[in-house]
Amino acid sequence: MSPPAPAAPPLSATARTRIGRKRDRARTDRADLHAVLDAACVCHLGVVIDGAPRVLPTAYGRDGDTLYLHGSTGASSLLAAPSAEICVTVTHVDGLVLARSVNHHSINYRSAVVYGIPRRVTGDAEKLRALRAIVENVAPGQWDAARAPSRKELASTAVLALPLDEASVKVREGDPVDEPEDYALDVWAGVVPVRTSYGAPVPDPALRPGIPVPGHILATFQSG
Amino acid sequence: MSPPAPAAPPLSATARTRIGRKRDRARTDRADLHAVLDAACVCHLGVVIDGAPRVLPTAYGRDGDTLYLHGSTGASSLLAAPSAEICVTVTHVDGLVLARSVNHHSINYRSAVVYGIPRRVTGDAEKLRALRAIVENVAPGQWDAARAPSRKELASTAVLALPLDEASVKVREGDPVDEPEDYALDVWAGVVPVRTSYGAPVPDPALRPGIPVPGHILATFQSG
Repeated sequence: MSPPAPAAPPLSATARTRIGRKRDRARTDRADLHAVLDAACVCHLGVVIDGAPRVLPTAYGRDGDTLYLHGSTGASSLLAAPSAEICVTVTHVDGLVLARSVNHHSINYRSAVVYGIPRRVTGDAEKLRALRAIVENVAPGQWDAARAPSRKELASTAVLALPLDEASVKVREGDPVDEPEDYALDVWAGVVPVRTSYGAPVPDPALRPGIPVPGHILATFQSG
Repeated sequence: MSPPAPAAPPLSATARTRIGRKRDRARTDRADLHAVLDAACVCHLGVVIDGAPRVLPTAYGRDGDTLYLHGSTGASSLLAAPSAEICVTVTHVDGLVLARSVNHHSINYRSAVVYGIPRRVTGDAEKLRALRAIVENVAPGQWDAARAPSRKELASTAVLALPLDEASVKVREGDPVDEPEDYALDVWAGVVPVRTSYGAPVPDPALRPGIPVPGHILATFQSG
């Protein structure tokens, strides 16, 4: 009998991924990290340029325990900076927490923060795998439905790989937490749920006639 | 007759706020900056710690041309770091842009990026104004509805003020843009609209009986 496959290691805290305050909000299961990452398609990428922080929104994808980012080779300081640490943060806002005191107003959220030095992806096979992960993270099924990248397109796309080695996940959920004496106040308290919803797909006006919205798009973006 | 009030100056580009690529996406009207900031309640705050970037989600509020952030005085490297540059980014995802080629897949978004050295707010009057801006940005009307901060709560809250002096706004909207020859492909293309929606307010289970959801909450968070 072969030994069972090793379970994915949990997230082990480093000094900067250890949750300092409100430790009950920390999650250390790798599945929680994957879930937070997979539920969004835009992250906030932090880099240091001339000693100052820069935070830009960008698309990303995940393949196993690698997070992929991409950009034009003609672009940005971001992809030019080799061997420098970056930080990738993904946040979902789940609810507005309205307490009896303004001091305890809060937000329900799930967030993941990943630190590391990214590796520039050079081989075409991994580049394609990375771009597939990014496109499929925006809209599953689109990689096979749309035209694949040409050699020229592939060459003009820079791809970074960031291992999910150093990461933290933080979740705030549930009801407001007020000061004990404030529960007697005549003030409403509760949570306003926040959701991301999708509208009906809007065809490109230049779309050739007779092409229906594909089933994989309808299936993924049915609004609840 | 007194002269008309001076119009707010437009956003003047610095090296890092000048949009390098896809310049048609840049917005330089200060009203666009305000609109992007006012339509969200969570930003991504970027700081540099030990030379590495750190990006954390946090609430914020705007009062005129000042952006306010807050945190516990017991917390974080973030608020401890005086006189250091920070970057605050706010992003709205408005649509998934599905093109005929994977290469032209994109995301419709509005984003604002603000750079600067924040000022630690010390006076109680400005602190209260800042906290009001933050709470009202989460849920308008809550500042007056909920219990005001006590002196102790106020003292334990650190507030940072960031002037909206150096900022950029970028917007991508509309249809996919494909390569000319790809418009003949038998591939659907269009946009899946993405919206933030709100669920019905969920009362705190510990709420005293007989307190209805306030009108200002119902009015703001009616789901469309």
